[in-house]
Formats: sequence, structure tokens, C-alpha cells
Amino acid sequence: MSYQPPIRDQLFLLRDVLELERYAALPGFADASLDVVEQILEEAGRFAAEVLAPLNRVGDRQGCRWSPDNSVATPDGFKAAYGQLVAGGWPALSADPAYGGQGLPAVVNMAFQEMSSAANMAFSMYPGLSHGAYAAIRAGGSPEQKDLYLPNMAAGRWTGTMNLTEPQCGTDLGLLRTRAVPQADGTYRISGQKIWISAGEHDLVENIVHLVLARIEGAPEGVRGISLFIVPKFIPDAAGAPGVRNSVKCLGLEEKMGIHGNATCVIGHEESTGWLLGEANQGLRLMFVMMNEARLGVGLQGVAQADAAYQAAARFAKERLQGRSLSGPQNPDGPADPIIVHPDVRRMLLDARAIVEGGRAFMFWTALHGDLAHASPDEAVRTKAADYMALLTPVVKGFLTDRGFKVCSDALQVHGGAGFTEGFPASQHLRDCRIALIYEGTNGVQALDLVGRKLPAQGGRAMGAFLAELDGFLAAEKANVELAPFVQGLAGARAQLQEATFWLMQHGLANPEDAGAASTDYLHLFGLTALAYMWALMARAAQGRVAAGDPDPLYANKLIVGRYFLERVLPDTGAHLAKLKTGAAPLMALPAEAF
Amino acid sequence: MSYQPPIRDQLFLLRDVLELERYAALPGFADASLDVVEQILEEAGRFAAEVLAPLNRVGDRQGCRWSPDNSVATPDGFKAAYGQLVAGGWPALSADPAYGGQGLPAVVNMAFQEMSSAANMAFSMYPGLSHGAYAAIRAGGSPEQKDLYLPNMAAGRWTGTMNLTEPQCGTDLGLLRTRAVPQADGTYRISGQKIWISAGEHDLVENIVHLVLARIEGAPEGVRGISLFIVPKFIPDAAGAPGVRNSVKCLGLEEKMGIHGNATCVIGHEESTGWLLGEANQGLRLMFVMMNEARLGVGLQGVAQADAAYQAAARFAKERLQGRSLSGPQNPDGPADPIIVHPDVRRMLLDARAIVEGGRAFMFWTALHGDLAHASPDEAVRTKAADYMALLTPVVKGFLTDRGFKVCSDALQVHGGAGFTEGFPASQHLRDCRIALIYEGTNGVQALDLVGRKLPAQGGRAMGAFLAELDGFLAAEKANVELAPFVQGLAGARAQLQEATFWLMQHGLANPEDAGAASTDYLHLFGLTALAYMWALMARAAQGRVAAGDPDPLYANKLIVGRYFLERVLPDTGAHLAKLKTGAAPLMALPAEAF
Repeated sequence: MSYQPPIRDQLFLLRDVLELERYAALPGFADASLDVVEQILEEAGRFAAEVLAPLNRVGDRQGCRWSPDNSVATPDGFKAAYGQLVAGGWPALSADPAYGGQGLPAVVNMAFQEMSSAANMAFSMYPGLSHGAYAAIRAGGSPEQKDLYLPNMAAGRWTGTMNLTEPQCGTDLGLLRTRAVPQADGTYRISGQKIWISAGEHDLVENIVHLVLARIEGAPEGVRGISLFIVPKFIPDAAGAPGVRNSVKCLGLEEKMGIHGNATCVIGHEESTGWLLGEANQGLRLMFVMMNEARLGVGLQGVAQADAAYQAAARFAKERLQGRSLSGPQNPDGPADPIIVHPDVRRMLLDARAIVEGGRAFMFWTALHGDLAHASPDEAVRTKAADYMALLTPVVKGFLTDRGFKVCSDALQVHGGAGFTEGFPASQHLRDCRIALIYEGTNGVQALDLVGRKLPAQGGRAMGAFLAELDGFLAAEKANVELAPFVQGLAGARAQLQEATFWLMQHGLANPEDAGAASTDYLHLFGLTALAYMWALMARAAQGRVAAGDPDPLYANKLIVGRYFLERVLPDTGAHLAKLKTGAAPLMALPAEAF
Repeated sequence: MSYQPPIRDQLFLLRDVLELERYAALPGFADASLDVVEQILEEAGRFAAEVLAPLNRVGDRQGCRWSPDNSVATPDGFKAAYGQLVAGGWPALSADPAYGGQGLPAVVNMAFQEMSSAANMAFSMYPGLSHGAYAAIRAGGSPEQKDLYLPNMAAGRWTGTMNLTEPQCGTDLGLLRTRAVPQADGTYRISGQKIWISAGEHDLVENIVHLVLARIEGAPEGVRGISLFIVPKFIPDAAGAPGVRNSVKCLGLEEKMGIHGNATCVIGHEESTGWLLGEANQGLRLMFVMMNEARLGVGLQGVAQADAAYQAAARFAKERLQGRSLSGPQNPDGPADPIIVHPDVRRMLLDARAIVEGGRAFMFWTALHGDLAHASPDEAVRTKAADYMALLTPVVKGFLTDRGFKVCSDALQVHGGAGFTEGFPASQHLRDCRIALIYEGTNGVQALDLVGRKLPAQGGRAMGAFLAELDGFLAAEKANVELAPFVQGLAGARAQLQEATFWLMQHGLANPEDAGAASTDYLHLFGLTALAYMWALMARAAQGRVAAGDPDPLYANKLIVGRYFLERVLPDTGAHLAKLKTGAAPLMALPAEAF
């Protein structure tokens, strides 16, 4: 039941599809030669498979334990594994060298995070949440704040949290009640209750850095009066070491369907001491820096859990002997054939492969744009990359977690009755994965963000660039006979996406309900089109290898799975287009009291 | 968080859509006047909402407890509730009056079972499993066996089980190893291990009647050597009362993702005493009598859990204040609007309504055919009804559980973060519902049964009758302007279903892998078409009421939800058709070792 790190698939993306070596002149990339990256991934794979994966079930069974002294104990083995994580330097992989990081490209870190998250999602959230907090402090902190917090967070000695949600206030941050009262010494006294705070309290590190949304006394109501504060569990002393215990406390843990190994905390602030991060009443901007990091990470969780669930299902399907192939016995000396001979079992496994491999490419391609948005010397490249990050983040988050959950459910189904028992890993993957559709903004919120904000921003510049890139690819490959099915599939999806975009422009501006009614189907149509592009890029790269006589079956298999995607997954675009073009009327006609 | 029995929707189906009173001349129906049925449903609804629903969470939290003496304790309150079930005469509702039953139509019992299953799925499986065992004994038992077992089972004093699965043998019953050795007194000694036996041991009744598949010593290998045995937990004495304890034992319970309140047992037969049911080596025929009953029940579970999950989500969406409507505040005096103002929230709720109400109609319509197959004096009606039951059982089971699970997942999503916590009912509905896609034959097995056995049976007679019935409806209503969208939607789906059926006839016979590869998409295309027909029937009935000036908003709302189905659910048919017509090649190309 072991996890197999997808190193060869990751290297195929980095080397053959994204051609990482093209960027060797950029900061960070120079140290990321493919040989070095391969070594890093091998090491990361060992850590994920040998240290994290064996703890996954332990975490699920045991969960976290809260004590009345407000402490939280993580499951057995988590603390030692976290020690190995820090000793291996993994949290610092893509952190800024100015703060002790290794400065490698984010796309390389993404490969590590995928493996970590697939092997043990609950564990990987402890360091995972720190990335967003690190990014927010790096983006908005004073020099002193950066110097104090970033090296500790980059090294993983301290972890971070996002203290946003309150009982009456989730998506709608305007309803936030937590109050911050300015003190004479420049600090703030913060009071209020936060809920659903992942990794909000635990025993893995010496300090926890809470980033807390609160309203400064007298600030405007609504979202224009929200500020972001740094509230450390232990207030750093003059030497920067954890000092006095702050009055931020974990008041209890949520009982959840999954990710039992991660502490989901009720956090009470009773006049806890906080430091303003960035400007007063401008908290949402930095919060979104943190949130966007987190959303990409959640999209990755969808792919990672899907891959782990797929792997377990594929193993089961190759081992479970039951029935005979429809075309005659394939294992004539055995009592029955392995169930992988059945087309309908393969349907579920290939759906998984098409989404996992296409989704991984989409994640990596997006992460590379994140690198380019910061590192490219070319302003046009930086602008386009930043546009892409904004546009694609909700697609990555919403599409890959919706589809990832479906993969987890299919993987459970491949197991038959065994999948429903907790003796097999399928149930945990399904239960763990389910939260990814919800947190850091539900997938419905992602879809609204996409159609309401990201699409119209700068007159639709980002979407224009995306469609132009697809057109460039289609024009370049239109004579490539070998690639014809991929070109044709992508062209069809692109045309439908454009039609949907025009429909939104015509209707969504006049009637925002139409945009809302179309949003989820639009997001899925976008995600499928993005994956059609990814599969076309992968097919081109694989075909190049095959044509060059490379005997590695990886390349031929990529083409097979890609064809499956075109024939068996991509046809969903038509249904999404038909549904979204109905407008809001069918959804709004029923009176609320009739629900 | 209470369950609202859907009595008015059920009565609409029985009275206006199925027109139960048309059948008053048939046995059983004479006693089922609509007044009587309404009283029964009111009483059933009270029992489900007031007795069963409050125990649902208890069952989930506490689960069943196995003891080393091989006994199983059900969750607190289950035994008392079961006592009320028996006292109310509910198990006997549609049982044969010759054995103490009330002899009401199965379609009325279906309404009771829906409410029971929605309120508490784990509980309702204890009496639920008995229905199949009862049907098998009634179909194949000797007069003495019927007289001994059926009255006790009809009354609910004894429950039944299906002892089919073994560790090496689930779908593939040919691998069965449990052995039966004939004894001089005509009984058999049965030895072997059975797993995943729902309600296999518990403390609710004085006796449990196991129906056990086993191979008589010397019988042929494979499915031609399988017999069915009655193995009572306590061997009835001369007076028919539970006597000597048989050596059938519960060796342990499975730990599962859901339905914790139902005991899923490992059952050991160590020379337990059994009586042959029906003829030797003909066990599969009676097993399928039992299995087909169970499969309909499982389809119903999909609808029932979907409705319960929907109800919780709708309540949450009307109460949770968060954000504002895209078209301006709808609750200006409150801090925010209820989230039901959002089109994308309504999308999830209306998807649920379209599936639950359409699926309920499909269940009831199918159950009525089950009644007609037995009770009609007209041989042609009986034949068509029996054909329908055979053809539609896999569609009911596979389609309604796949879609029901999707509804449960969407209902959880409506809750946002609250849905992932065990403080709300959404997680339990999702976890409980998940088993319905697996047991009594996985949904993949249903799809294969549909395309491989049910469709070609008698030269496609059943499918021909179904398409002819749709054509009759379409012809009769083609001038009905009010019904035009429903007629058009049904005609489109029907044409796609026919195209798919032709494709299967052309390809599936020549290459069975093509049929296997098409099976799940075909089953879904069939299910969607059946629901399009149900919605057309409901729309016609509702329109009649509206035209007659009936002010009950139920009818106008049916038309709204029906239109939603047409515009927002039915477009999936095109994707299913496109996928199934690709044939098996995209699924079989990847070598098994590459998975």
C-alpha cells in the first residue's frame, strides 16, 4: 500500500514540457539544473514515501488531541517526521536566500509539495500553511518584521497560520468582529474568536505565527476596515527567540470528516498582543497574497490525493482476481483474471490518470508562471505571468479539487466493498480530499472570483493572452499530422471557451445573476480547456521523444492517456457550455420558501 | 435539523402521476384507496421523523459493538425503535396476506421505505434486508418452509440476511468455497466464511434467518454448482419457536466509512445446520430474486439519502447569512443575505431537487410495474411489467446511487466549512450514501448487467417496449403547447438513447469489450432519459392541476424544477453519448503493467 513518488512524470514535465533549462539565466533557475532537480526529487520522494506515507493512516486513526491547558498533541510520529522535514531543509526550498532560503524556483518546490501532500495531506498542512503566512510577511512586513519572522519560517522552526474565519463570517469578511485596540507602545490588543484555523496549535515547533484579520477600533464597517496583524504564540524576545506566552489560545478542535491528523482549531484571542502587518485597513490585500498561495496549494492537494488514491486503486485492480475478461481468460492458470481486464475498471483508472497527469502539468505550468512573474527580466513576460496567476488560481483550485474528489471516489469504487472499509486507504483519501473543495474559498467562490473579478480585469487582458497563446500553439502545430487529434481537441474546447466568454460578456455585465449562474460551468469548461492544452503540450513533447527513438514507454503511454483524455473526458465541455448558456432564470424562478 | 417526510410529493406521484385509483380492481390495490394511503404515509412520516431520525446520529457516533461471545449490540435506542416498527406493522405492509402481511401494493411500501431510509439508513437496513430473504423463500421455499419462516419475517419478529460474499469471491460467485455436506436427515452441514454480511448479527430480534450460498459436496465448479440454504441462527423447534443455537457465528465487524449503525459482519459457518432452499445447484436463480429486491432498495437509498442531505442543505442555505445578492440586498435589515440568494448555491440545491423528485418518480413508477407484474390479470401487461423490472433494476440502482452521492456531496458543499465538521449532518449523509454505489453489485456491475444481459434479452423486447411507450407519450402530447419543452427534451434524450442502443447492437455483439467500455455511460444516458420521461409525466399532471385552478404551489413548483432538469441536468446526455461511441480502444490501449 506504499506511495510511489511520481518522479519520472515530474521530470518529464520539467525537462520535456516546460523545458526548465530555457530559464537558466533567471535567478534561482541557475541552481536548478535538471541534474540537481532530479537529485532533489529523488530525495523528496524518499522522504514522502518512507517518512510521511507510513504516518498517514496513524494520523487518520489517532487524530489530534486537545488538552485543557490549550495545548494540542499531534499524532504519534508527526513530531519526529517534522524534525526530519526541517533537518532536510525542505521548508526552505524555494524561500528567499535573503532569509535563509535556497531560492529554488517555485515549480521545483511544487514537485516536493505534491509528494508531501499525496503521502500525508494532514501532515503537509503544518508546513504548508506557513508558505502563505511567509508570503504575506515578505510582501507587507517592515524590515524588522521580515528579519524577525522570515528566517524562522523559511527554516520551518516556526510555522504560520491564517486567522480569518469567525463563526458569523466565512466568505463574507465584511462581517468580521475581531477587534484590535491600539496601545501606546505601537502594539495592538486583539480580542475575538476565530474558527477552523488549520494548524492553529500543535506541538511540532517552538513558535506559531498567527496572521490575524481584525478591525481596529473605530475603523469603518465592512471590508474597508480590516487590518492584518502578526500575533505570535510566544512573543519574540530581544534576541528574537520565543519569549513570553501571548494570550492567543486554542479553545478546542473541530471533529471532522477527514484530515484528522491536522489540528483544526477554535482560536481565542483575549487581548492577545499583535503587530500591524502592512497598513491599517488594508488587511485584505495582504490576506489575498496569503490566500492565493494557499489556493494554489489546495489545487495541488486535489491532484495529490487523486494520485495517491489512483495508485492504491491501480494496485488493487492488478491484484484482485475476480471474473474473466470479456474477450476470454487473460490469466488462464489462475482462478480468475485481475479486474484490470475490465473496460469499466479501466475507465475509472484512466479518468484518474487523465486528470492527475493533466492536472499536475497544469499546476507546474502555473507555478512556472509564478516564478516568471517575479524573476523574468522582461516586463511583458512578467505582466503576462502575473495575469495568468490571477486568472488561473481559481481554475486550479476549483477545477482540480472538484475533479480530484471525483477521482478519489472512483478509486474507492474500483476497490468494491473493500473500498468502504477502513482497512484500505481509499476511504481516507476520499475523506481527506473532500475539504479541498471547501477551504480557502469554496469552489463556488472560486467560480465567482473567476467570472466576476479575474475575467473582466484590465479589460479581459489575461483571458485575451491565454486565448492568444492557444491560437499560437494551434497555428504552429496545424500541419503536425501526428498531433492532429490533440490540435483538433484543443481547438474545439478553445472555441467553446471563447463562446462561453462572449456569452458572459454579453449577459454577465447586464445581469450579474447570469454570471453567477454560469460561473461553475464556466470554471469547468476553462479547466477542461486548460487540460486540453496541457495534454497537447505533453503529447508534442512525448512525440518528439518517440520520434527520436527513445524506448522509454513513458512517452508512448503519455500519448495513450492523452488520447483517452480527448475521447473520454473532454466531451464534457459541451454539457458545460449548454448549461451555462441557459442564464439565471432556471435557477432563480423557484421562491426561496419553496426550497 | 429534522427530517421532513415528503408526503405531499409522494401523494402527488401516487394520485396525479401514477393514478393509483386506476388499478383499484387489482388485488391489494382495492385496499389502497388514496385516503387510506394518505393516512398510512402520515403515520409512516411520523415514525420516520420522530423515532428513526433522532437515532441517526447516535448510530453514526456509537456504531455497533461486537463481543467475544459473538453477539452484536446495536446503538442505543435501536432496539426500542425496532419494537415500535414491529408494533406498527410496518414490515408487513406489502407482505402476502397468506403469511400475515397486509398485502398493500409494493409502491406504497416503497413510500414507507423511502422515509425510513432517509431518516436512518443504517437502521432501515435491518428490516430492509429481510425483504429480499422473504422474497426468495416465498419464490422457492417448500410449503413447510414458507409456513415456518414467512409469517415471522413478514411480522418482523425474525430478520433475514444474504450470505453471499467471501473474501475471494464478491462479484464472481463462481469462486465460492463455502461447502455444504448432506446429512442423513435431509439437512446440510455448512462450513465456510462469509464477509460483509449486513445485519448479519444484532440484538433486535429473536431469530435471524441467513440465506447462504454454498456448494454441495461434489457439485460442479463455477456458478452451476451453487445452492442456496436457509441457516437460522436458532433452529426452530417443533412449535416453530427459536430452539437450539445453530453454529453460525459473527466473528467480527467491519470498520467502515459510514452506516456505522448497521452491523457489517464476518460470519463463520462451522458445520452450521442448513436446509436447502429450492433445488440443488440452482441457487443463483433464487439469489437473484433476493438480489433484485435488494437492488431496488439500494436505488431507493440513493434517492433517500439525497433527499435528507438536500433538506439539511436547503435549511442551512436559508439560515446562513453571508454576503449579498448579486442583484442587491435581499435582507437589507440583516447583516447579510441568506446564501440561498446566490445562483450557484441554488444550482446545487436544484440539481438535488431535479434528481430527488425525478428519481422518486422513477422508483415509484418502477415499483408499480413490480406490482403489475404480479397482480395484473392481463398477460401482456404482466409481461411488459416484468420486462421493465428486469431492464430497469440496474438503471435504478446504478444511476440513482451515482447521482444520489453527487447530491450528497453538493449538499455538503452548500454548508461550506460546516459541512466538513461532524457537528452537521452532511458528512454522515455522504459517508452513509457512499456504500450504495457498491453493494448488491457495484454500479459497474449494474452497467454490465444492463448492456450484456438485460438489453439483449428476448431480442431486445424490454427496450423496444420502453421506447414504444416514450413514442406513445410523445405522439399523444405533440400538440400540447404547454408541455412543449418537456416533449422536446424527452424526444432529444430518447433519440440519443436509441442511437446509443443501435451503436451497442452494432458493436457490442461483435466485440464485447465495446459493450463493457460503453456500459456506464449507457446506463447514465438511460437514467437521464428515464428521468426526462418522469419529469414529462409529472409536468403533465402538474399542468393539469394548474389549469384546473388548483392554488397549491406544489404544482407550479414542479414545473419550475422540471424546467431546471431540462435545462441544467439533461444536457449531460450528449457527453455520455459521445464517450460511449468511442468504443473500447481508448480504454484497452494502455498495457496493464503501465497502470
